[in-house]
Amino acid sequence: MIKIVVDAMGGDNAPVEIVKGAVKALEQRKNFSVILTGDEALIRAELKQYKYDESRVEVVHCSEVITNEEAPTHAVRAKRDSSLVVGLKLLREREDVVGFVSAGSTGAVLTGGIMFVGRIKGVMRPALCPALPNSRGTRTLLCDCGANAECKPAYLAQFAVMASAYAKAAYGMKEPRVGLLTNGTEEHKGDPLHQEAHALLKETGGINFIGNIEGRDIMFGDADIAVADGFSGNIALKAIEGCGKTVSEVLGREFKKSLGSKLSYLFAKKQIGSLKKMLDYNAMGGSVFLGLKKIVIKSHGSSTAKSITPSVVQAVDAYEGGLINKLTEAFAELGLAEGGDE
Amino acid sequence: MIKIVVDAMGGDNAPVEIVKGAVKALEQRKNFSVILTGDEALIRAELKQYKYDESRVEVVHCSEVITNEEAPTHAVRAKRDSSLVVGLKLLREREDVVGFVSAGSTGAVLTGGIMFVGRIKGVMRPALCPALPNSRGTRTLLCDCGANAECKPAYLAQFAVMASAYAKAAYGMKEPRVGLLTNGTEEHKGDPLHQEAHALLKETGGINFIGNIEGRDIMFGDADIAVADGFSGNIALKAIEGCGKTVSEVLGREFKKSLGSKLSYLFAKKQIGSLKKMLDYNAMGGSVFLGLKKIVIKSHGSSTAKSITPSVVQAVDAYEGGLINKLTEAFAELGLAEGGDE
Repeated sequence: MIKIVVDAMGGDNAPVEIVKGAVKALEQRKNFSVILTGDEALIRAELKQYKYDESRVEVVHCSEVITNEEAPTHAVRAKRDSSLVVGLKLLREREDVVGFVSAGSTGAVLTGGIMFVGRIKGVMRPALCPALPNSRGTRTLLCDCGANAECKPAYLAQFAVMASAYAKAAYGMKEPRVGLLTNGTEEHKGDPLHQEAHALLKETGGINFIGNIEGRDIMFGDADIAVADGFSGNIALKAIEGCGKTVSEVLGREFKKSLGSKLSYLFAKKQIGSLKKMLDYNAMGGSVFLGLKKIVIKSHGSSTAKSITPSVVQAVDAYEGGLINKLTEAFAELGLAEGGDE
Repeated sequence: MIKIVVDAMGGDNAPVEIVKGAVKALEQRKNFSVILTGDEALIRAELKQYKYDESRVEVVHCSEVITNEEAPTHAVRAKRDSSLVVGLKLLREREDVVGFVSAGSTGAVLTGGIMFVGRIKGVMRPALCPALPNSRGTRTLLCDCGANAECKPAYLAQFAVMASAYAKAAYGMKEPRVGLLTNGTEEHKGDPLHQEAHALLKETGGINFIGNIEGRDIMFGDADIAVADGFSGNIALKAIEGCGKTVSEVLGREFKKSLGSKLSYLFAKKQIGSLKKMLDYNAMGGSVFLGLKKIVIKSHGSSTAKSITPSVVQAVDAYEGGLINKLTEAFAELGLAEGGDE
C-alpha cells in the first residue's frame, strides 16, 4: 500500500488539526496509508480522539520542529530530527512512500524538498503550483506562485511544461490551455522577461500555449494554467485570497447588522454558502512543489483539518495520475532533461 | 468657474454613456463646468435628452477619434483633431481648464498626457493610481497599476511620494500609510528591484512607509497606498477586478437557479447589494495619471455613465484638494525637483 508522509508538527494549528486532517483523508481514499512525523506522545493523544483503521496509520517520532522564524537553509541542515526533515527523508528513501504534505515553513519545505528529495533531471527551478477555483467551476493552476521571486525566460517555459503534466495527472485535463500572466493580452506586453518568455513558450513543444493572459483571467478560467514568475504570481494569488476573504467578511457583517438581516441570511444561506465554498481556499488543498523526484505538497500555514485532508488526497491523486512519470517523460521528450541543471 | 474636459468619444460606450455621465456629474458638484470634445452633432443629440444648466456645458467639435487598435504614439501625433488630443491641448493651454477625463485608449492617454500636458519637474515616470475599495470601507490607492511595466527603485520611491500627495489632496488622508507590494512582508523579500526600493523608501522623507505588504493587504486595507511596479500592480488590480466580477456572477447564478432561490434573493437583496456595491469598480471613478502638470483621469474602457460621473467628480475634488500643488511642493521639499528628468 502506498504511503503519504504528513508533517504533523508543521503550521499554526499543529499537531491538532494536522492529525485530524490526515485521519479524515483516510476516509476519502482507501488505497493509501499515512505516516505522521512529530512528537509521538502528542500525536498519539490526538489520534485517540478518532476512529480509524490503525493499520493505515504509522507514527515516526522526531524530537525537533522547524518554525517559521528560522532561516530555512540553516534550519533544514541543523534540525535533522525535525518532523519536516525526517518526513522528507522517508519520502526519499522508502519506495512505498510516494508523497509528503506539510503546513510548515514554506522556505523550509522548498529548501528541504530540493535538498533531500532532489530535482527531476533537467528541472532548473521547482515551482509552487496551487489549483485555484474559477467561475467556470474548474481549476486554474498558477505556476509559480512564490518559490522563485527572480526568474529567467527558460524557467517560465519549464513551469508551463511542469504544470501541464500536473494538470493532466491530477485533474485529468486533456490539453490544458497555458496562458502567460502579464499586464495585457497583446503579444508585446510586459517587461523583457515576459516578452522573451512569450517567444519561448510559442516554440515549446508538448504544451497548448494560448498567449498572454491578465490577472482577471485567473478567476474567469480563461486558461487552465497561468504561468507566472514567482513574484507576480504570488501577488496575484494573495490578491485573490484577500478578495475572497473580504467578500466573506463583508457578507458576514451585512447579515449580522440587524434582526431583519439575520433573518434574511436564513433565506439566502444556501446561495451564500455556494459562494463561500467557491472562495474557500482551505478546501482547495495545498500547492504542489513541482519539479521534484517525488510529490511534495505545501499546505497553507494556517491550515486546519479542512485543508490538510484535501492536501493529502491531492498527493494520492497526483501519484495515481502518474505525475512524476508524466513530468519526467515530458522533460525527456522535449530534450529538456539533457539540458541538465543550471 | 473651473472646467473639466471630457473626451466624449473615448471608450466602448462613447458618446452615449460619456455624455450622460458628464451631465450627471454637474448635479454632484456645483462649482465647475464641463467641456465635451468630439463629434458635435452626436454630442448635441445626446445632450438633448437631459435637463441641465446649459451655461455649464461647452462642446468643442473635433473630427477624429483615436481607437484602441492604433499605436498610441503614432495616433496622438497623427490625429491632432481627435477628441483626446484636442482635450489634452485645452487642458494645457487654458488656465480655467483644470482636469481631463477619458475612457479612451490607455496608451494614448498616457502618451498624450506626457506629450501635451507634461511632467511636473523631477517626475521620472508618471504613474496610474486607482483608488480601490477595501474591507475597512476606505480606499487603497494602488500606484503604479500599469503605466510602467519596467521600473527602477527610484521610480517606486517617487510613486510613494506622488500617491501620498494624492491621498492627502483627494481623500483627505493625514499620514497615509505606504506599503511596498511584494511577495512577503519580511524586509528581504522580493527581487533586487523591490529590495532596493524598500531601502530607498525607508530613507524617503515626507512619507509614512510601513514596510512590505502582500497582495491580500490591498483588500484588507492594511495600507492606504500600495506602491507597485506597473507590471505586478497591473496583475494585482486585474486579479482583484476578476475576483469581484466572479463573485457577482456566481451570486447572480445561484440566486437564479430556481423559484425558491429567486425568492431568497428578495430577502437578501439589501445585503447582496451592499457587497456588490463594494465590489463595483464602475462606481469607483478612474485612475488618476499622477505626475503630470494638470489632472488627467483614465476611466475604464468599458465605462458607462455610472463610472464617468465619479471620474469627473474625482477630477474636481482632486483639483479642489490642491493635488498639483501638493505634489509639486512635495517634490521640491524632497529635493526631487532638482533631480530633473531622467
